[in-house]
Amino acid sequence: MKRRALLNGFGALIGASALTSCAQIQGQQTSAVPQSQLRGTGDLAVAIARADGRVAVIDTTEQQIIADIPGIGDLSHASLVYSRDARYAFVFGRDGGLTRIDILTHQITHRVIQGGNSIGGAISQDGTLIAVSNYKPGGVKVFNSQDLTLVADIPCESKTVGLVDAPGQRFVFSLWDKGEIWIADFSGNDQSKPDITKFENIGRNPYDALITPDGRYYMAGLFGEDGMAQLDLWHPEKGVRRVLPNYGRGEKKLPVYKMPHLEGWAIAGGRAFVPAVGRHEVLILDTNSWEEVGRIPVLGQPVFVMSRPDGRQIWVNFAHPDNSNIQVFDSETLEQIVHLKPGPGVLHMEFAPRGEKVWMSVRDSHEIHLYDTTTFELQTQLSLPSPSGIFMTARAHKIGL
Amino acid sequence: MKRRALLNGFGALIGASALTSCAQIQGQQTSAVPQSQLRGTGDLAVAIARADGRVAVIDTTEQQIIADIPGIGDLSHASLVYSRDARYAFVFGRDGGLTRIDILTHQITHRVIQGGNSIGGAISQDGTLIAVSNYKPGGVKVFNSQDLTLVADIPCESKTVGLVDAPGQRFVFSLWDKGEIWIADFSGNDQSKPDITKFENIGRNPYDALITPDGRYYMAGLFGEDGMAQLDLWHPEKGVRRVLPNYGRGEKKLPVYKMPHLEGWAIAGGRAFVPAVGRHEVLILDTNSWEEVGRIPVLGQPVFVMSRPDGRQIWVNFAHPDNSNIQVFDSETLEQIVHLKPGPGVLHMEFAPRGEKVWMSVRDSHEIHLYDTTTFELQTQLSLPSPSGIFMTARAHKIGL
Repeated sequence: MKRRALLNGFGALIGASALTSCAQIQGQQTSAVPQSQLRGTGDLAVAIARADGRVAVIDTTEQQIIADIPGIGDLSHASLVYSRDARYAFVFGRDGGLTRIDILTHQITHRVIQGGNSIGGAISQDGTLIAVSNYKPGGVKVFNSQDLTLVADIPCESKTVGLVDAPGQRFVFSLWDKGEIWIADFSGNDQSKPDITKFENIGRNPYDALITPDGRYYMAGLFGEDGMAQLDLWHPEKGVRRVLPNYGRGEKKLPVYKMPHLEGWAIAGGRAFVPAVGRHEVLILDTNSWEEVGRIPVLGQPVFVMSRPDGRQIWVNFAHPDNSNIQVFDSETLEQIVHLKPGPGVLHMEFAPRGEKVWMSVRDSHEIHLYDTTTFELQTQLSLPSPSGIFMTARAHKIGL
Repeated sequence: MKRRALLNGFGALIGASALTSCAQIQGQQTSAVPQSQLRGTGDLAVAIARADGRVAVIDTTEQQIIADIPGIGDLSHASLVYSRDARYAFVFGRDGGLTRIDILTHQITHRVIQGGNSIGGAISQDGTLIAVSNYKPGGVKVFNSQDLTLVADIPCESKTVGLVDAPGQRFVFSLWDKGEIWIADFSGNDQSKPDITKFENIGRNPYDALITPDGRYYMAGLFGEDGMAQLDLWHPEKGVRRVLPNYGRGEKKLPVYKMPHLEGWAIAGGRAFVPAVGRHEVLILDTNSWEEVGRIPVLGQPVFVMSRPDGRQIWVNFAHPDNSNIQVFDSETLEQIVHLKPGPGVLHMEFAPRGEKVWMSVRDSHEIHLYDTTTFELQTQLSLPSPSGIFMTARAHKIGL
């Protein structure tokens, strides 16, 4: 029980300022590997502590923070991806930092400042390449996932957004300034010269994008006009088409407190549940026709609309001033099942891969919450300063995450 | 390169009969943990060597067998599931043995003979329970996943088949002798007394079953009559209905060389691709109506019909005498993309979770093959005596696997 007591909350770890790894806390450092570090990685998660440039490693089985890793730079809009062995996390920082973390030894193995202002990244289907999209200086850079050496530089005279991996060793991304979507195909022999396919005039100012869970449809949201730009990656020869003509701010220009995250689209049972832009609504789309088939009224402007992995529940969080709430809906009846009030600044949700629990970051109460998705009981609260994204290692095995 | 040379094939390992772990081979055993064992577990797989009572641990990144673990009993029809941390494999042997293997240290941690003749098992949604279905003495036994102590015994005076886990901490299985489907719900406080729901008269002799990837529909194949028994787990109150009235041996009683595996159903893009019983056909079903919407002629009696994880390709293997073949079809055009001839006795296929590769066991040439799913090149051949099932750890994160 000693380990539990020592690690029961992040505060204790931060108080011991020189500590960087769980192994050192326990005094088990040996010439070989501490026994504590020998473990499977399938049930680990990494949570971003956005104010402090730190991340926490969570054991989701023991429901404990087991390590605090500092020195990762500006994490104010950070995300990460995992290596295919689920041992390394690649953190994309707002300051252009790309950091490779060993979540078993709790060390930073490699870190590069690869741009001036980055907005996210992706890992290639085979796990060998890490791509980062940049606001400054724009373009996309691609690195070797073993040592973060530069493999390819893809300048494009634009901020890039909505970068995702796609089947066939491809990356897909959008150009904010030029209104284009590019596919970079790394399946050829020369990794420094990917095959680039460009789609022009896709719409003004794409600001984010998603790829469907099967890796087929890439869809970019447009800040400058209504509708979404959709590319069928099974048929790139058909070009980009506009879908959801009313998706966006619509006829009345509404104040938008936060553009919704597109990655969070819930796709379940042939329908997509989508945050409406600036409206207190979740839109329901048919994923064959991509036409709207219904709406769910919600209590604020939705940010993430996520489905429990079995598709039976739809969980929604909100922009300011409603961001202390969570609403959960039945995906079949569309009725509200429960209304939770975790606390101020609910930024992110991450479901256990088989759906029995959900982790939630509550930024302004400096807590991570764990809820049961059947009883909706709050089961665990962990202390973490200004938590934002939470990422479970099961993402290593998913297309587009 | 020394490690590669040493471990390049299973034959060398078997020759060194006293060896049970990779660490010992490398002479790195220390009082702490050998460095070689500190690794992520997300890219490991376990393959069954059915003739020898052994399993092999495969590093799917290095494409090497890294350990040989003997002493697991009769593996002639074995399967396995993984713990939620992707460190432990639970192997269900034909002799009633349930074996818990540590795939990091390559040791058997626990082994019990829990019945006389078992046919498969499942792990609960939260990872705490292992359920095993038995031919002899019949019924289902449920064990603690930490130490394999008995938690619950569910006798039912019948052979049990088609045991799967379902959301809500449930197991679902079918009763061969009685023609019933039972749900055992372990979400209550007393784990020794699960809540049992029984569905009677579902049809004669259910022989196997599947659960859809979202955990909603449980479907049992019937040996004694045509059609399938379907239970909607979102609405158990509606009871079991018969679907696919012509599914089975149909009007002419055909010789069936091997009943197709139902776990292998490919579900992609709102359609299920299903092995026809005894016919040289793959059936295509609409997953909303569960009605047949097409057929693909194939070269033999299909056993497994599997989709590449992105749903774009359908891979089919066959019963004797056609079991040296693999046919791959485009899921959209239904045309054959490639016809592979890996060798005699292709028993099983396992896709990398993001779909770029597929592992295949070729029993009678004592090999495991690795194919690229874009170029269809044979990339690696590993030696393993009489390989059958291959299981990647990404299964730990899936409902029903």
